[in-house]
Amino acid sequence: MIAPDSFKGSLGAAAVCAAVADGARRAVPDAEIAEVPMADGGEGTLDCFLSARGGEQVELPATDPLGRPVRARYALSGDGASAVVELASASGLPLVSDLPPDPMNAGTHGTGELIADAVRRGARDVLVCVGGSASTDGGTGLLRALGFRFTDADGAELPPGGAALARLAAIDASGVPAEVRAVRLRVACDVTNPLVGPAGAAAVFGPQKGATPGQIQELDAALGTFADVVAATTGARVHDLPGAGAAGGTCGGLAGLLGAEPARGAELVADTVGLPDALSGAGLVLTGEGRLDGQSAGGKVVSVVAGLARERGIPAVALAGGLAGPLDDLHALGLTAAFSLADGPRALDELTAEAAPLLAALAEQVVRLHAAR
Amino acid sequence: MIAPDSFKGSLGAAAVCAAVADGARRAVPDAEIAEVPMADGGEGTLDCFLSARGGEQVELPATDPLGRPVRARYALSGDGASAVVELASASGLPLVSDLPPDPMNAGTHGTGELIADAVRRGARDVLVCVGGSASTDGGTGLLRALGFRFTDADGAELPPGGAALARLAAIDASGVPAEVRAVRLRVACDVTNPLVGPAGAAAVFGPQKGATPGQIQELDAALGTFADVVAATTGARVHDLPGAGAAGGTCGGLAGLLGAEPARGAELVADTVGLPDALSGAGLVLTGEGRLDGQSAGGKVVSVVAGLARERGIPAVALAGGLAGPLDDLHALGLTAAFSLADGPRALDELTAEAAPLLAALAEQVVRLHAAR
Repeated sequence: MIAPDSFKGSLGAAAVCAAVADGARRAVPDAEIAEVPMADGGEGTLDCFLSARGGEQVELPATDPLGRPVRARYALSGDGASAVVELASASGLPLVSDLPPDPMNAGTHGTGELIADAVRRGARDVLVCVGGSASTDGGTGLLRALGFRFTDADGAELPPGGAALARLAAIDASGVPAEVRAVRLRVACDVTNPLVGPAGAAAVFGPQKGATPGQIQELDAALGTFADVVAATTGARVHDLPGAGAAGGTCGGLAGLLGAEPARGAELVADTVGLPDALSGAGLVLTGEGRLDGQSAGGKVVSVVAGLARERGIPAVALAGGLAGPLDDLHALGLTAAFSLADGPRALDELTAEAAPLLAALAEQVVRLHAAR
Repeated sequence: MIAPDSFKGSLGAAAVCAAVADGARRAVPDAEIAEVPMADGGEGTLDCFLSARGGEQVELPATDPLGRPVRARYALSGDGASAVVELASASGLPLVSDLPPDPMNAGTHGTGELIADAVRRGARDVLVCVGGSASTDGGTGLLRALGFRFTDADGAELPPGGAALARLAAIDASGVPAEVRAVRLRVACDVTNPLVGPAGAAAVFGPQKGATPGQIQELDAALGTFADVVAATTGARVHDLPGAGAAGGTCGGLAGLLGAEPARGAELVADTVGLPDALSGAGLVLTGEGRLDGQSAGGKVVSVVAGLARERGIPAVALAGGLAGPLDDLHALGLTAAFSLADGPRALDELTAEAAPLLAALAEQVVRLHAAR
């Protein structure tokens, strides 16, 4: 089983699979090889989903973070039952880079439009990949596109954006269609920041969206109000939920109002592409990523794949462009061994340019050693 | 079993063993580990012999290539039964670098004095490591120190050096002691050049000893005369014997007059340090060298160790500073797999400086993978 992440800046996950499979076949010509390109919820996730589940990218008109029209895309599986929506497609910060930063008003409405479209087409399992958002709106734009209403003390609908949540008094879910409520909504979320407070969405991620210290304070208070009203509405307290602060609080909003559970991107992707089942019967799992950092490996593709392999008693070996830090934590998570594709003294640009043949050569050696028993 | 060559310019073979053992122990704390530092008959061979067989370096006064006194050394095993003599110690080119090159008269007498001393002390198994000689004397200086006489048509003893062999008429072995004849004399010889002709000792190695084209022609003819007289004396024809041209024909002279068989240095060292026996019962062999060149690996430590391992059905893995060229030939010789200690983009001086911890880290991964079955 070959289940690597992409090697960022060098090879996509499918190309990594192909190179590793080449090397494995050189070592054991009649090996049965399965390739499952992986991703961690970031770059490459749509490709990896479509490679595993078939289907297509659906492109449609949507709303950008500041309310302008934008063409956005999501991936729908071949059977139409699953979708992967990247928040960056309709609600990413780069979409509004032509305008002055507007962290107070930027929203996530467009991402909700994509999800609504997927649900209309029959998707009952939607993976939302957050990251790179322009907004700090607690996901209220997204939720509004799915039928929620956010109103002030006078019953008037709030305008988009995080700042307006300071006036939030009630959340009306009566307009949310039953099929939206029935969706299994999962949010790929690799940070553990809470919704509010000094480690919250506004404080930590506000500055990169252009928020001034004063705006951060306002947004943090507004998100606090939002969390209070969510708690009053559904009973779910998301103020301090780990991960709730991801994507300007989108994770928190989806968790509080639609029961979405924040989870590690690589775990959700593994599940969505069917890796756990595909592993059955494998004798060796080869995974990998461009740079394997032993100290911050938790939740990444390599550790998730290694954990799944260990549960099944299968050795898992990581092939990486570079190894950093002690690998003990990865070993503890289930990784049998890790190797760099570097074949001696090499500059980074050489390793990047020759990653495919070097990976094949390394995979051949690893599979030869594994087979020598 | 850990049996690596030295990593030239970085770690001696014993240091390589120690680093690899560290890593192996991290992977399998209760592993039974045997360390046999290896060498290929060149640099590090004395150390590796003494590490395996105990004993001491014997230092004694000898004769340098041009007849001057020099302190030289060889290694005698703890049981006194075996010795390793490096030709470079008494007969090396650097010993006469203070004088103008004298390829016509330079000789190997000093090396014979070392061998004679070892035999006097009881050695019955002598490994002669050639390489770096100043001479083109067919080993006649060495042989003279062991009791041979080389005479001209008038019965007069020839002076030292290769040029005088042009007048060689007879070889008298009557003064060679029985214990010298009884010695198992082996010559570590990694080249396949014949004694004479365009690929012979004078033509190929003469220039680096300072021989002019005219001198090369003279020396080649003199070695031809020497080979003719050897054949007439013992029946052994060494003119075209592969390897006979090593060390200015020393290999050819020892083969023709004392029945020494030229063999690959690494094979002889493996035998001398007892590697074949030590391998019994090993579950994994880790070998290695600084730079593993798949295309010119024949006879080097890695291929010899891999071949011995394969004969015993033991997987053999090479750990190297760098890998060069396709490894198919090494795989065909028995090497299971090879890995570089590079952990990502690194400059040569970094790899050299951090070779020990990087080797330990790599060995840990290899042993973990081997143990995961």
